Amino acid sequence: MTMTRPSGRASDQLRPVTLQRQYTRHAEGSVLVSFGDTRVLCTASIEDRVPPWLRGKGEGWITAEYGMLPRATGTRTQREAARGSQGGRTLEIQRLIGRSLRACINRQALGERVITLDCDVIQADGGTRTAAITGAYVALVDAVNFLMKRENLKRNPVVGAVAAVSVGIYQGVPVLDLDYAEDSACDTDMNVVMNDGGGFIEVQGTAEGHAFRREEMDAMLRLAEKGIAELVTAQCAALAEG
Amino acid sequence: MTMTRPSGRASDQLRPVTLQRQYTRHAEGSVLVSFGDTRVLCTASIEDRVPPWLRGKGEGWITAEYGMLPRATGTRTQREAARGSQGGRTLEIQRLIGRSLRACINRQALGERVITLDCDVIQADGGTRTAAITGAYVALVDAVNFLMKRENLKRNPVVGAVAAVSVGIYQGVPVLDLDYAEDSACDTDMNVVMNDGGGFIEVQGTAEGHAFRREEMDAMLRLAEKGIAELVTAQCAALAEG
Amino acid sequence: MTMTRPSGRASDQLRPVTLQRQYTRHAEGSVLVSFGDTRVLCTASIEDRVPPWLRGKGEGWITAEYGMLPRATGTRTQREAARGSQGGRTLEIQRLIGRSLRACINRQALGERVITLDCDVIQADGGTRTAAITGAYVALVDAVNFLMKRENLKRNPVVGAVAAVSVGIYQGVPVLDLDYAEDSACDTDMNVVMNDGGGFIEVQGTAEGHAFRREEMDAMLRLAEKGIAELVTAQCAALAEG
Amino acid sequence: MTMTRPSGRASDQLRPVTLQRQYTRHAEGSVLVSFGDTRVLCTASIEDRVPPWLRGKGEGWITAEYGMLPRATGTRTQREAARGSQGGRTLEIQRLIGRSLRACINRQALGERVITLDCDVIQADGGTRTAAITGAYVALVDAVNFLMKRENLKRNPVVGAVAAVSVGIYQGVPVLDLDYAEDSACDTDMNVVMNDGGGFIEVQGTAEGHAFRREEMDAMLRLAEKGIAELVTAQCAALAEG
Amino acid sequence: MTMTRPSGRASDQLRPVTLQRQYTRHAEGSVLVSFGDTRVLCTASIEDRVPPWLRGKGEGWITAEYGMLPRATGTRTQREAARGSQGGRTLEIQRLIGRSLRACINRQALGERVITLDCDVIQADGGTRTAAITGAYVALVDAVNFLMKRENLKRNPVVGAVAAVSVGIYQGVPVLDLDYAEDSACDTDMNVVMNDGGGFIEVQGTAEGHAFRREEMDAMLRLAEKGIAELVTAQCAALAEG
Amino acid sequence: MTMTRPSGRASDQLRPVTLQRQYTRHAEGSVLVSFGDTRVLCTASIEDRVPPWLRGKGEGWITAEYGMLPRATGTRTQREAARGSQGGRTLEIQRLIGRSLRACINRQALGERVITLDCDVIQADGGTRTAAITGAYVALVDAVNFLMKRENLKRNPVVGAVAAVSVGIYQGVPVLDLDYAEDSACDTDMNVVMNDGGGFIEVQGTAEGHAFRREEMDAMLRLAEKGIAELVTAQCAALAEG
Repeated sequence: MTMTRPSGRASDQLRPVTLQRQYTRHAEGSVLVSFGDTRVLCTASIEDRVPPWLRGKGEGWITAEYGMLPRATGTRTQREAARGSQGGRTLEIQRLIGRSLRACINRQALGERVITLDCDVIQADGGTRTAAITGAYVALVDAVNFLMKRENLKRNPVVGAVAAVSVGIYQGVPVLDLDYAEDSACDTDMNVVMNDGGGFIEVQGTAEGHAFRREEMDAMLRLAEKGIAELVTAQCAALAEG
Repeated sequence: MTMTRPSGRASDQLRPVTLQRQYTRHAEGSVLVSFGDTRVLCTASIEDRVPPWLRGKGEGWITAEYGMLPRATGTRTQREAARGSQGGRTLEIQRLIGRSLRACINRQALGERVITLDCDVIQADGGTRTAAITGAYVALVDAVNFLMKRENLKRNPVVGAVAAVSVGIYQGVPVLDLDYAEDSACDTDMNVVMNDGGGFIEVQGTAEGHAFRREEMDAMLRLAEKGIAELVTAQCAALAEG
Repeated sequence: MTMTRPSGRASDQLRPVTLQRQYTRHAEGSVLVSFGDTRVLCTASIEDRVPPWLRGKGEGWITAEYGMLPRATGTRTQREAARGSQGGRTLEIQRLIGRSLRACINRQALGERVITLDCDVIQADGGTRTAAITGAYVALVDAVNFLMKRENLKRNPVVGAVAAVSVGIYQGVPVLDLDYAEDSACDTDMNVVMNDGGGFIEVQGTAEGHAFRREEMDAMLRLAEKGIAELVTAQCAALAEG
Repeated sequence: MTMTRPSGRASDQLRPVTLQRQYTRHAEGSVLVSFGDTRVLCTASIEDRVPPWLRGKGEGWITAEYGMLPRATGTRTQREAARGSQGGRTLEIQRLIGRSLRACINRQALGERVITLDCDVIQADGGTRTAAITGAYVALVDAVNFLMKRENLKRNPVVGAVAAVSVGIYQGVPVLDLDYAEDSACDTDMNVVMNDGGGFIEVQGTAEGHAFRREEMDAMLRLAEKGIAELVTAQCAALAEG
Repeated sequence: MTMTRPSGRASDQLRPVTLQRQYTRHAEGSVLVSFGDTRVLCTASIEDRVPPWLRGKGEGWITAEYGMLPRATGTRTQREAARGSQGGRTLEIQRLIGRSLRACINRQALGERVITLDCDVIQADGGTRTAAITGAYVALVDAVNFLMKRENLKRNPVVGAVAAVSVGIYQGVPVLDLDYAEDSACDTDMNVVMNDGGGFIEVQGTAEGHAFRREEMDAMLRLAEKGIAELVTAQCAALAEG
Repeated sequence: MTMTRPSGRASDQLRPVTLQRQYTRHAEGSVLVSFGDTRVLCTASIEDRVPPWLRGKGEGWITAEYGMLPRATGTRTQREAARGSQGGRTLEIQRLIGRSLRACINRQALGERVITLDCDVIQADGGTRTAAITGAYVALVDAVNFLMKRENLKRNPVVGAVAAVSVGIYQGVPVLDLDYAEDSACDTDMNVVMNDGGGFIEVQGTAEGHAFRREEMDAMLRLAEKGIAELVTAQCAALAEG
């Protein structure tokens, strides 16, 4: 095919991915994740409380919040705290992050505590939610390890790895890990969350322009499988350090 | 397979679907859609204005709002107007409905006007968002036909049909059109929106329990294709009346 | 007198009234009430809790909420949940419904529980608050009967019937049960809530144009007494079924 | 009758009423009204604008806002500005004040301007809304006179006087102008707004305990007529000064 | 120097100050303070509860709220309760008042209770926050004395007097107690809160036009010391009555 | 004196200060400022609009917003966007930043545009507002230089440098640039904003424990003067690069 991606990447090529642990010092887990120019700070905070509807059940909870600094984007976006509410896009993304990370945790083994994953976008260039999930997993493991050391948990509540990537149809061609230039011009955009066993946790595909066909969907899912395998490798490498 | 659905339906069987047009008299389109015990009132309202960011561009907009009457559910849920904001689930669903319906409209042909699709759940038994999309399409067509008669539009802005259905893995078996009993106990839940040409508009799959495999996904997509073909037939039949 | 009502009704004639019980299946009481083209869904929901200021006092509470579907009206009105608050008119109406229904309940006999009456207007053509009160009474009785069967209450907490109707001065003539065409053009509008013993529970009269005289008020009250007697008969008939 | 009012007043006796004009110096009208220990500051503010829905129609608008200082009451009530919204009671009262004062104004003669009546309760002892209406009328006349002097209006837009009083059934006896001790213990409470020609502008009666009978209503209305005549006299006397 | 203040006052001269105790009858302390045309009603309300973070610690809390009646000012300002939130200026002022008054209280001696100081501006002419602090101190002492009589506290929790005044540079000259005409035209505005021992509790200086020099700051602080000494004398005199 | 600061610094010693320009790539100015472990991202965004009250006046505006990432602090603080409003502390700080930066800009020379300074705390260890002001100045200069290059402004609107530092009394000794350990235990805390000409722009001193004396204030102001001179040097050095 003769399509050229704006970044010059191959159609099945991720952007450079970095996972910088201990980026800030207060949080039990703190990771700056970069997917190219997209940079998201993911912190994991442990609190010894559970939501009211979980009290006394002997299990914990994982929740997520997502934010975008006002000038993470090309033009300034209004601060949600100043506007007085979180928008629909923000709520949708943080619900997705929370569900995705809960899929890799045994909540009984966690015990009656909450781990909150705050994912704040420092700089945006497409794919902030998939970078957030990928980085939040590493922050979550760091927080759980902190807990394991201090609390002598009987079992490790982390039951697998979780990573996410976007795929899409750009100028008729399935591509992996869309950046902003591709995302704003693509026909179809799909976010895929998977575990390290090759199972699907979330698939969210949207036709922006024309509806997509089954064979396009299959091609996108294959790209996502490839990308996520590489992301899981990067997560393992980051966690193996220090 | 020996699994029995709570409703006794076959695994590829929709609930009885009805689409009652002109359910209320003020709206340009007004449809009560039932998927079994799930009943949603979908109204389409035409306004001769566009959002600020579309002014002077010669094209229109389709938007949607979703609500649930407090006692549409088994236990009363708090009224969002009383609470002071729409929840994340509501925002997510109404964004989905709006995107889905925009996929079947030529916005230039619509001209500078907005059609708002209000989807209010009178009674809930699972699948309210897919029933809403399926019913809203019929209300939208009625509203467009109202406009065609009155305004002498040059072209019909409706460029295809849109319908939606849920599929899932219930007790290990892929099933079509989950009701509440299945939805609250299933392993995987996927909402699929398609057009009448067999193209995908939205695919949103979530692993509630264990992650799902590619072959399960394929089976679910096949069920969705079958169900949506039946729903499109029901939409056509409803629109052919009167 | 030579005045003709837009609907052709006699000045002391109600619109056709229907009270359809068990309209939805989850609520302990669920009634669709119609006063002509005005249709309001009234559900009664029982919860085994009381507001904080009633805890430990051995008595219950009746409360009401009121809503209007966005396209219940001739032009679409903004959804209160989307706007972020209930308007003054909504709060005023739901306070009125709550006070009216509390007047027919012995709160000691009810015990420590709350019954919430949700009155949602499906279609509006004037008189939505009086239809809501009239229908909510029937839903409340159904909910109390549900409770009597299940809980073996010693006494029936319902101590009388409550119904409501509007009266007004239209083109100089006192009329009963104003529809929208009359309501938007009348000089005086009065909502009257009474019990089945002929006692007044609420009287709310407003001069829209010129101030009204004592003799006009007397004439309106006589019409209200007649109309409410007929509404109480309709309530009894509806409750006698099934 | 042997009933004694807590204040020792006769059943048809108002509390001492004072209307202190020019209480503050910035507002075009500023009146401190006292009904006994109830003290309300009523200011009238003129603005040369109209609400959007009145633009270009050549007529003005009268609106009202009502507030209660947190410690106007026996125990401190939460500040509505701190809570983030005005309660249902506040909205209901300010809508009543606005409607009542609009009844004495010719809006064409007022021209395209808004007069806002702010009624803030400094000290509460029952009857704050009726005191507010009675005082706001005097502030409104002062503001209109300010406008007449400065703007050379062709006609005086004030077309009559408006005053308000509460009546009720206290220990079985109809009484005029309830104070807090009576209000919190009465069976029925009715607020009556009338003009100086003996016409009714608003009647809002509520049975707190047992439903009230027609003859009780008639007795209350007679008391209201007497009280309002005295209030109109007090308004005239206050306006005749200075 | 030849500068003349708009009010004709000497540069080190306060406006006439009055402190009228028992201005309203419900609050445990209630003071109307006037600094010239600036009039603020300060009430002190005692509640036998503490904020959650102080429970069981055996100490109390002092908090403050500030409000401005809509027409306290030359042109009407929007009611914060209607707008749905307190503005930044309001929050800043009430935080200042609360901190200032806490500086004169021994919270252990107060015991587990909260005293709330509500400072509501009836009429504004500059210096509302300094008048509020000065008046709130007198209301606080009255409330504490009420408590001492009723509760037989072992120690008086009031450990000193607190007063506040503004100073500024007006037309190049340091002046004491700016009124609105000066405040809106001055180069520098400084609010100073001190105790009766000559210690500083708060100093908040802002250069409105050019930055101010150390020697100007020194001159302003000397004026503040003089003014506050006079205000403390006025507070003592007011408290010595009755 | 024998007092030892928790950090081991001399009493007149700043923490290590860094100003990293072009920290993110979208904003016209983007600076990560560190005062020791306190790290604040300051971005300057130019928009070609002015607030309504400045339209047509030929001058611009500088405004600021402040935020704290939820886990910038030792324990997680609630996200203001999730809570639905900015707290009093946030509003107070962003008002201070805005006023401070406006003091170094000629608004006529800026022309009809707004520069918004977003100061987001990535990691907090005391002194976030003074770090924010110091960093925001550098971001503002970068944004103005961007504008000068692109727009060929006649004059440079920056008329001086602005920096800020905190000073306090810690264990009886005046110290410069308090970190969190000192800030939470000090008797007095003062934030000082000055320009590069030695003029004061803001002085905000608060006695946390005992009131402070004039001589203590003088000592603190001298420390502030020294610290700000060093900060201005650091700003110049950062701006001289690149």
